[in-house]
Amino acid sequence: MNKKKIINDPIYGFVTIHHDIIFDCIELPEFQRLRKIKQLGLTSLVYPGAQHTRFQHAIGAMHLMQIAIKSLRAKDIDISKEEEVGALLAILLHDIGHGPFSHTLEHSILDDVNHENLSSYLMHQINNKMNGQLSLAIQIFEDKYDRPFFHQLVSSQMDMDRLDYLRRDSFYTGVSEGTVGIERIIQMLNVRDNQLIIDQKGIYSVEKFLMARRFMYWQVYLHKTSIAADELLLNILKRAKAIVNTPVSIKVSPYLQFFLENSFTKHDLSNNNVIENFCNLDDSEIYSAVKIWQNSNDKTLSVLCKMLTNRDLLKIELFDSPIDIDFINEKIDETSNRLNVSDSEARYFVCVGELKNNAYTRTGDSLKIGMKNGELKELSETSEIYNLTNDQKPQVKYYITSLKLV
Amino acid sequence: MNKKKIINDPIYGFVTIHHDIIFDCIELPEFQRLRKIKQLGLTSLVYPGAQHTRFQHAIGAMHLMQIAIKSLRAKDIDISKEEEVGALLAILLHDIGHGPFSHTLEHSILDDVNHENLSSYLMHQINNKMNGQLSLAIQIFEDKYDRPFFHQLVSSQMDMDRLDYLRRDSFYTGVSEGTVGIERIIQMLNVRDNQLIIDQKGIYSVEKFLMARRFMYWQVYLHKTSIAADELLLNILKRAKAIVNTPVSIKVSPYLQFFLENSFTKHDLSNNNVIENFCNLDDSEIYSAVKIWQNSNDKTLSVLCKMLTNRDLLKIELFDSPIDIDFINEKIDETSNRLNVSDSEARYFVCVGELKNNAYTRTGDSLKIGMKNGELKELSETSEIYNLTNDQKPQVKYYITSLKLV
Amino acid sequence: MNKKKIINDPIYGFVTIHHDIIFDCIELPEFQRLRKIKQLGLTSLVYPGAQHTRFQHAIGAMHLMQIAIKSLRAKDIDISKEEEVGALLAILLHDIGHGPFSHTLEHSILDDVNHENLSSYLMHQINNKMNGQLSLAIQIFEDKYDRPFFHQLVSSQMDMDRLDYLRRDSFYTGVSEGTVGIERIIQMLNVRDNQLIIDQKGIYSVEKFLMARRFMYWQVYLHKTSIAADELLLNILKRAKAIVNTPVSIKVSPYLQFFLENSFTKHDLSNNNVIENFCNLDDSEIYSAVKIWQNSNDKTLSVLCKMLTNRDLLKIELFDSPIDIDFINEKIDETSNRLNVSDSEARYFVCVGELKNNAYTRTGDSLKIGMKNGELKELSETSEIYNLTNDQKPQVKYYITSLKLV
Amino acid sequence: MNKKKIINDPIYGFVTIHHDIIFDCIELPEFQRLRKIKQLGLTSLVYPGAQHTRFQHAIGAMHLMQIAIKSLRAKDIDISKEEEVGALLAILLHDIGHGPFSHTLEHSILDDVNHENLSSYLMHQINNKMNGQLSLAIQIFEDKYDRPFFHQLVSSQMDMDRLDYLRRDSFYTGVSEGTVGIERIIQMLNVRDNQLIIDQKGIYSVEKFLMARRFMYWQVYLHKTSIAADELLLNILKRAKAIVNTPVSIKVSPYLQFFLENSFTKHDLSNNNVIENFCNLDDSEIYSAVKIWQNSNDKTLSVLCKMLTNRDLLKIELFDSPIDIDFINEKIDETSNRLNVSDSEARYFVCVGELKNNAYTRTGDSLKIGMKNGELKELSETSEIYNLTNDQKPQVKYYITSLKLV
Repeated sequence: MNKKKIINDPIYGFVTIHHDIIFDCIELPEFQRLRKIKQLGLTSLVYPGAQHTRFQHAIGAMHLMQIAIKSLRAKDIDISKEEEVGALLAILLHDIGHGPFSHTLEHSILDDVNHENLSSYLMHQINNKMNGQLSLAIQIFEDKYDRPFFHQLVSSQMDMDRLDYLRRDSFYTGVSEGTVGIERIIQMLNVRDNQLIIDQKGIYSVEKFLMARRFMYWQVYLHKTSIAADELLLNILKRAKAIVNTPVSIKVSPYLQFFLENSFTKHDLSNNNVIENFCNLDDSEIYSAVKIWQNSNDKTLSVLCKMLTNRDLLKIELFDSPIDIDFINEKIDETSNRLNVSDSEARYFVCVGELKNNAYTRTGDSLKIGMKNGELKELSETSEIYNLTNDQKPQVKYYITSLKLV
Repeated sequence: MNKKKIINDPIYGFVTIHHDIIFDCIELPEFQRLRKIKQLGLTSLVYPGAQHTRFQHAIGAMHLMQIAIKSLRAKDIDISKEEEVGALLAILLHDIGHGPFSHTLEHSILDDVNHENLSSYLMHQINNKMNGQLSLAIQIFEDKYDRPFFHQLVSSQMDMDRLDYLRRDSFYTGVSEGTVGIERIIQMLNVRDNQLIIDQKGIYSVEKFLMARRFMYWQVYLHKTSIAADELLLNILKRAKAIVNTPVSIKVSPYLQFFLENSFTKHDLSNNNVIENFCNLDDSEIYSAVKIWQNSNDKTLSVLCKMLTNRDLLKIELFDSPIDIDFINEKIDETSNRLNVSDSEARYFVCVGELKNNAYTRTGDSLKIGMKNGELKELSETSEIYNLTNDQKPQVKYYITSLKLV
Repeated sequence: MNKKKIINDPIYGFVTIHHDIIFDCIELPEFQRLRKIKQLGLTSLVYPGAQHTRFQHAIGAMHLMQIAIKSLRAKDIDISKEEEVGALLAILLHDIGHGPFSHTLEHSILDDVNHENLSSYLMHQINNKMNGQLSLAIQIFEDKYDRPFFHQLVSSQMDMDRLDYLRRDSFYTGVSEGTVGIERIIQMLNVRDNQLIIDQKGIYSVEKFLMARRFMYWQVYLHKTSIAADELLLNILKRAKAIVNTPVSIKVSPYLQFFLENSFTKHDLSNNNVIENFCNLDDSEIYSAVKIWQNSNDKTLSVLCKMLTNRDLLKIELFDSPIDIDFINEKIDETSNRLNVSDSEARYFVCVGELKNNAYTRTGDSLKIGMKNGELKELSETSEIYNLTNDQKPQVKYYITSLKLV
Repeated sequence: MNKKKIINDPIYGFVTIHHDIIFDCIELPEFQRLRKIKQLGLTSLVYPGAQHTRFQHAIGAMHLMQIAIKSLRAKDIDISKEEEVGALLAILLHDIGHGPFSHTLEHSILDDVNHENLSSYLMHQINNKMNGQLSLAIQIFEDKYDRPFFHQLVSSQMDMDRLDYLRRDSFYTGVSEGTVGIERIIQMLNVRDNQLIIDQKGIYSVEKFLMARRFMYWQVYLHKTSIAADELLLNILKRAKAIVNTPVSIKVSPYLQFFLENSFTKHDLSNNNVIENFCNLDDSEIYSAVKIWQNSNDKTLSVLCKMLTNRDLLKIELFDSPIDIDFINEKIDETSNRLNVSDSEARYFVCVGELKNNAYTRTGDSLKIGMKNGELKELSETSEIYNLTNDQKPQVKYYITSLKLV
């Protein structure tokens, strides 16, 4: 069977699968499920075009890795076929541990396990079945390989993950300002002492990239309506868990039920069918459950679910300083009166939180610029705009949600 | 509240809502549910980008209607504000009767009711609630208004529905050959004696449009892998209905359960909460049910559901003539042996059908060309390629599905 | 010096130069002059965006050749590095013989020499200077290499030349209907017995391509306003040549003067500095001369040049049958009266000609389809639309130009 | 005659001409000549796609003005039809005074007259012929109209001129990083006290715009190869003027000859056929002259012209501080020795200058942000990145050109 398949992508055109093992991994049920997990969760309530999935993103990021490897080889960086395949697999599978609604429910389904942990766990599990064919990919993913630039291509300030998701999220939301000159940036990547660096002449591209990312944060990722929707969904899950063992609950998909009725930690991953059940979850279980719960006898759950289903979202207000406790309590009172529920139930509608545009520093690592004279400099030393997009002047906004006035 | 909202669309950029009533209809729960119904159902198994929804399509088609009305007015066609709003609402709501997986399950959920019937039914229902504000829109939709070109803009050979879906499906699948010069075609539309016509100089655009549509049929809508997936889903629903009242079945979402356990006809729409339950269905109930049924005690259902979930689809073969009955029986025998099921159960895997590229004539109506000398001609009289894209030489292919050899 | 340059192209993004010899040929003065020769000549008077040059087209076609070679190699067609470079050079230089205004003035500057002859001539000349490095490229260009598919990639029904110019002309004119799915078509190319063929599953793509080309012919290449402008320019050159040795003429650039004052044939290419002077011509000499001649004492020349400079073009009328001689004479009379010139001078304004959409058959060669069962078929045997786009029903229109009524 | 023409634009699709007077102005010879003046002059030597013209830019900017007016009216800003036409004409004609190679030769053809002066002059001249139909347009253009926001839409920090040229230059160069979300920015424009302002929620868009502009400066407008080409052309004209009255010169187009042989000031515009001759110049006279001068007896002129024609450009070096006089003299010596010319002739090859990215402040005016609370703030008070893109930290680089080493 010919596994050198071509996949159509609206952004990149044709994406070619060059290696059988890549094809085999795409065929895995664990990977196929990413077709039903949207990249941006409830953001589609604000940007209706944002329907793209983790599946597309993973394929797209792998495509960029292919381009990056080709470009680095053209700069005489030695990359073996094994390393190429390892890097492609690492980026292909980097999000395999994502569950329904990606980041939004990351800690609602499994408390103390993030998606990277789950990706690792699943990669090891698959590796066992595949007789070690993923070993190098796992080393790269977990930053245990002795040529760190491979890991940096998967996860760093300037990795293929970000390049793809920024481009893709911009494309599907229709927010054209987030468009990044991916080709140019990849051309500017280089390797020195096995570390990923940016050639000096790429500095404007990098700055442009940082600005585009900043733009996407405020315009898309931290869009207040989308945050209001996220809060609604989070509180629905929280409420459902809280009442799951009371007589009022309504049964949903057994896979979801499993996580409502039990609380698992990292240490349970290998027991109890946790992973098996987890891999049977995608966005549809949640959507379906929310609709079922509209008819719950629990008023709080029912109201929350009706709101989300009908896109009648919570009101959200932003402030430059932390929300005053009195103001919060006022909102809680209002809500408990309006809905005739207890204060603790009202808290499911009145949520506070902060929005932080941590566009540049996610992981704390830095971006190195390779100067023409041979030096390596920190981006912060060479760029004028770096500081402003970075933590020196962190941009935080504080929000509170509440019921809309009728 | 400002209802002159702007919606981002990856294809058209900014779509502006010009009338409050349009905004109100978009807010309806009946319309919001279209956010969770994919335009192309299982086609995303072939083209991963095809995640766009009926919601986006409806908004997009309305946007094109706005452009068309503007263009016609510039040609001195008199269109009142009421007519404008009526036409916009008619196209906005034309697909409101679609259920999960759009066309694929159109007759699986409700046997003898197609989506147009349901759209009409829902529009009347909404109209009642809205004190008759949709009356003109309904007249236009049902072709009862005395200026037929409005209906033709909603539904005819060259309607805003098709222009949007061809463009959108082409965009999201990444099949760029389906791209249609929408702006130019709309500029070529005109009205004579209250009938929609095409100006003569638009004939090449129309031919180009017909070819693009033909291309989309073979490359996307009738893609054999996608047909194989559709058959799988259809047979899953069929099997679930067949065994729903036996002890082996597994419960799913109550909204879906309702349609599995009962068979309704057109006449039941007003009873029994049929519409209420229908409006609580979207793609997620089906996805969720398929995953639950993987564990059904019914082997046939279980195998079918595992296949779809893991994208391990049926094999499909195409032929130029109808499939021989002996060949079918052979496949059935093979299947019953392989799975150790009865012949009638094997029929859920061995499906025959035909693919027909009815790109041009769907509804039998024709396309009129307004010649420069004032005459009206049929497209067939003026175009050289018309006949070939039409029924004179119908293109039919016959398919049979079966289990893949291991 | 690093010759692995990257060139930005608005259509393809980054175009990479992979071989030093390619870079060297791009640097040649003979090639650099293509920067100043517009691909579509006076078409920019109709489509203002159509400013792209032969230079861009040649680079673009070379880029597509790179993709085609990569794709063929992936289908296990053996292509050596020498052959790759030969094919790249052949397509890069295929238009190097074009003069000012490309096709429009092809026989006005040098009577009996077409641009292919000149391309050949120049390639041989360059080859001498380069010690034979172009020998294989020339063999491929002149179809003397024993693996004909290379020539077919340069010049045939489905060559890289056409793929690029259709895409590029569509892009720059803004006539989106001409957009062709280049990537898909190239993926469908294959080689059997050293002949270029199309895989069967590519048949819809080919048909789509033929339709797009047909569309571009009527909408762009044969656009009547553009034909009217071409006739004006042709007649300007004709008039200038006719009066060049009379006392009324005005001097222009010596390079152009050289061709006005002398008539050369194929056999003169090697003498008289013909090629040297030719290579010093580009669109600017013509534009500049036309403006100078506005002040010519020769009324005919002066009027023609003012018309073109101010885009006050000839009126053009189209007919389905050849223009009647009486009608022509009537127009001539009208013109000579209006301008007070002789009948023979009036003929510079009254031009007749025919427009022929020879979209498919330019060179008479055919397109072979490689069927799944191993057979080779003519496109005409497998496609339904082939005949209509072909010569069976040649589409001819007859035109006559004349002065606009004031 | 129907003057409601539609013009195809590769960027915006269809551009509609809504008013007869607009159509008439486009038809003027003074405007048609912009078809032959490239927007970016010699930048096409670096980015071959950059062939777009001032004609396209003027039409594009007018199109954006139409959108802006529509958007402002939707915000209940009162704009009369006369004002609409005035603003459209003002932006349409804002660049009508540009000569060959736009900015590059702005002061080489006419010493002390910039293109804005010439635009004004020509607009007044046309206005006389048109019986005052341009009067309001001229008031707007010259900032004499009592509602300044119209002038600001034509010329200010956030005018339609810049929005179009940034978008267009980005599109044609293929430098996608310069892409600006024009639609969104225009939606953010508003008017308060007849001043153009930006709504607060548009601040990220504005910042993004400033970054894109900054990017375009370094990547395109100040690209060092393009500067090197500009210097070559400037020095060619300078040298030609210096020797025009000596016996060595060679005649070129009389229109250009006129400006070589005479020096005019602002005060001569109304005499001596200055404007008539100027309007007969476009890029082609220069291109043609440069090729003719390759054969000049003046060695300096001949060498300079051969270099430009063959794209064998000057070497250019950048420094962070002003170039040392000794270094300059060294280069001059080198050149005079290499070419065997005098030191003063060598200065035509050794040019020094500075590059300044004055992306934000061109005219010194500022950008006002309309805060939600009703206040007006300077962009500098609300934006974090403003200062860095502004003159507080001016980015200057110093360059020197010289002959390439052989």
